[in-house]
Amino acid sequence: MRNRDRPSKRYETLADEIEASIRAGTLRAGDRLPSVRQAAASRGVHASTVFQAYYRLEARGLIRARPRSGYYVAAVPPPPLEHASAPLGESIAVDVGERVFAILEATMRRDVVPLGSAFPAPSLFPLARLAKTMASTVQRLDPRANVDHLLLGNAALRRQIALRYLVDGLAIDADELVVTNGAMEALHLGLAAVTRPGDAVVVESPTFYASLQALEQRGLRAIEVATHPREGIDLGALAEVLERRRPAACWLMTSFQNPLGSLMPEAKKRELVELLARHDTPLIEDDVYGELYFGARRPPPAKAYDRAGLVLHCSSFSKCLAPGYRIGWIAPGRHLRTVARLKLSTTLTASTPAEATLAAYLEHGGYDRHLRKLRQALAGQRDAMLAAVATHFPAATRATRPDGGYFLWLELPPGADAMDVHRRALAQSISVAPGPIFSSRAQFERCLRLNYGHPHDGRVDAALAVLGRLARPA
Amino acid sequence: MRNRDRPSKRYETLADEIEASIRAGTLRAGDRLPSVRQAAASRGVHASTVFQAYYRLEARGLIRARPRSGYYVAAVPPPPLEHASAPLGESIAVDVGERVFAILEATMRRDVVPLGSAFPAPSLFPLARLAKTMASTVQRLDPRANVDHLLLGNAALRRQIALRYLVDGLAIDADELVVTNGAMEALHLGLAAVTRPGDAVVVESPTFYASLQALEQRGLRAIEVATHPREGIDLGALAEVLERRRPAACWLMTSFQNPLGSLMPEAKKRELVELLARHDTPLIEDDVYGELYFGARRPPPAKAYDRAGLVLHCSSFSKCLAPGYRIGWIAPGRHLRTVARLKLSTTLTASTPAEATLAAYLEHGGYDRHLRKLRQALAGQRDAMLAAVATHFPAATRATRPDGGYFLWLELPPGADAMDVHRRALAQSISVAPGPIFSSRAQFERCLRLNYGHPHDGRVDAALAVLGRLARPA
Repeated sequence: MRNRDRPSKRYETLADEIEASIRAGTLRAGDRLPSVRQAAASRGVHASTVFQAYYRLEARGLIRARPRSGYYVAAVPPPPLEHASAPLGESIAVDVGERVFAILEATMRRDVVPLGSAFPAPSLFPLARLAKTMASTVQRLDPRANVDHLLLGNAALRRQIALRYLVDGLAIDADELVVTNGAMEALHLGLAAVTRPGDAVVVESPTFYASLQALEQRGLRAIEVATHPREGIDLGALAEVLERRRPAACWLMTSFQNPLGSLMPEAKKRELVELLARHDTPLIEDDVYGELYFGARRPPPAKAYDRAGLVLHCSSFSKCLAPGYRIGWIAPGRHLRTVARLKLSTTLTASTPAEATLAAYLEHGGYDRHLRKLRQALAGQRDAMLAAVATHFPAATRATRPDGGYFLWLELPPGADAMDVHRRALAQSISVAPGPIFSSRAQFERCLRLNYGHPHDGRVDAALAVLGRLARPA
Repeated sequence: MRNRDRPSKRYETLADEIEASIRAGTLRAGDRLPSVRQAAASRGVHASTVFQAYYRLEARGLIRARPRSGYYVAAVPPPPLEHASAPLGESIAVDVGERVFAILEATMRRDVVPLGSAFPAPSLFPLARLAKTMASTVQRLDPRANVDHLLLGNAALRRQIALRYLVDGLAIDADELVVTNGAMEALHLGLAAVTRPGDAVVVESPTFYASLQALEQRGLRAIEVATHPREGIDLGALAEVLERRRPAACWLMTSFQNPLGSLMPEAKKRELVELLARHDTPLIEDDVYGELYFGARRPPPAKAYDRAGLVLHCSSFSKCLAPGYRIGWIAPGRHLRTVARLKLSTTLTASTPAEATLAAYLEHGGYDRHLRKLRQALAGQRDAMLAAVATHFPAATRATRPDGGYFLWLELPPGADAMDVHRRALAQSISVAPGPIFSSRAQFERCLRLNYGHPHDGRVDAALAVLGRLARPA
């Protein structure tokens, strides 16, 4: 099933065999696996082959290591979603507004279990610490700073952001950054800087609905390109579109894409940037989930490979530190001047107290500690939700297993209708984000995006049980 | 000279005669005028006629009453600018970006005397009090409020804004308001809600350069309509444009227009709204200076006369309370839903801590006291700047005498060149806003906008002396 087109390595074969035993129920949750030495002896392979197979199975969420005890079968996650999307048609006028808004508004009610929400739980953020920082920061604000910071935004904050990139190996000068009212404004500014009404823009399939809304507002056409749930946009398909359709720009999420959670491997990101450079096509890169990785280190954004200044890299603190402060930024490459001026003449600046507060918070060093805790919480919530989906949903339900962010993408069995699930779930005060809002042609009618950004408590689990029932074909 | 087309009343004739004596130097600054009784006797008129004439002269800034002492000639202000503008052509593509930005960026330097600035002095704002309010407010923020307030913005703040309107006799429900990132975003949202690229939009002549930038960004055409420096847009000219050109919207500042300082009389505002209703044409009303009146009460906005929901009324706290917080609002009438959704999909919300802070500040009642002080300071600074202009500028310089806001508009004598004055002033670290940035066709080449929002100290006075020299025709 896995790696169909690649010659299997021995450890992959072994991992696939064990996965099959788990899925068949031969091995059950809680069973202890043979030790590496035992397995190597009984199967006649090197210990390192077993070790690598176990490592793979752990990465797939199927087994877990307990220190000084060995490997155990985990709660079985749903089978993975492994096929790339197949977008309909090529390039059309975008008209998603009414559909998307109606659903978003419905999911904003406070009494609803927010599985369709785009935000993680507020309890995961250091809001009290931020409030303290703000309380002391605003008393020391230089009132003349307003004017100094008009063009690019708070200089101390830009320095802190640049410093974080530097630590992660990405050299962006503080003066190449523009502070914005969240990433959403950054993305809109990027789009305004590189497109004119009537242009075509490449997006992923499925894509974050806000990108479709942005295209609609600016009179742009969307070209949805096939995207793989683990590795992101299909570069072959993209190359063809660049050649034949000459889009004005691409708008992509290269790390932990919303809604798929896909992460483009580093080599693929590099290849993407080189491909776009050959076509002189700008990339609007939405990297708001880049800090929410569950692996060993931050995945570099595509911007890391940008030599031509063609990547307009956007991010924010809204998903990982301070929702509601509305502080984001853009590193617009060669479009810096245009973007800075567009911002100056639309919203002038971001909120000065919020900028100064985040600059102070970043400087005083609580951020990395907070992020470590946040990532750990999200990774645990992902596993819990995958286990609940495996328990409650029809057996043929497939799911992504993202290595970052806080969204699961489910494909329900044939016959299921995500819009219907959405409506019936909402009647029971549960929100979901149905697949059709992630496509200009209302594709993904069997898909749901679920938010695992909230602690997996009884309320969430009960909601998933309800959803699982609703997801059964009639 | 004044009221050329209206039959003069007796007190107006008397006032004009006295003004002529002052301008001729027969009466000089500091001279005491005859008492009302003396003047009535010597001129053979009723005392009430003299009283009304003196009242007019006081309103023109020419004389001042000293309690229990009588009327004295004030420092003579420059002659008033009394003729409406005569815009060139009708409707053209807007292309002002480069010109305006180059000038704005030049005026942002900290070492410059900011006579070209669009902001008043930070020292005029209760920044310490706001900081205290923020410090206590953010500690009590409900983290879930973010989601509740997504669509329209902080409910407590909207209630406070609605309450202020109610006190001023304008019934706007809190749920008819959308909180925005400053008035600038409100205006852009309004424009996006009621226009499509290629549409024509009516603006005043001269107009605030940001409106031209907004039209340019959205691919709209500008129709500049003749505007009178005291009473605002010419309704006759506007009626003709509505009839013949069918613009998609008007974007006007009905009170203390930037740059003219003109204030449309109440009857004229009502007539404007009725005229637009007959043509079903929306009005984007920029009312950011409405609270900065020097008269007895707040001038009602055009929104007060709106029965059809056609006025998209925009304002903010940036000019009168909290620059840098970036909190504005829009009352979009029948376009409420469209505007709320556009905001949701571009910047999501305004900054939550800033919203909550302003709600708390407004509730606890320091605002009216602050505004009274601010208005008094600005009115005094207006008079001081007018006196300095009279002293330092060529005699034929004409000036507006706005009854609110913080901008003077000067027309220099024939032969003067505002762009040249701007360049030479900047070389001496003085900024001005030259007339041509207020017109899509670079008209007003002899005009300057000066900011009297800064305390009139020696530095400002010296800068005005330099400007006065530069303003002399070569």
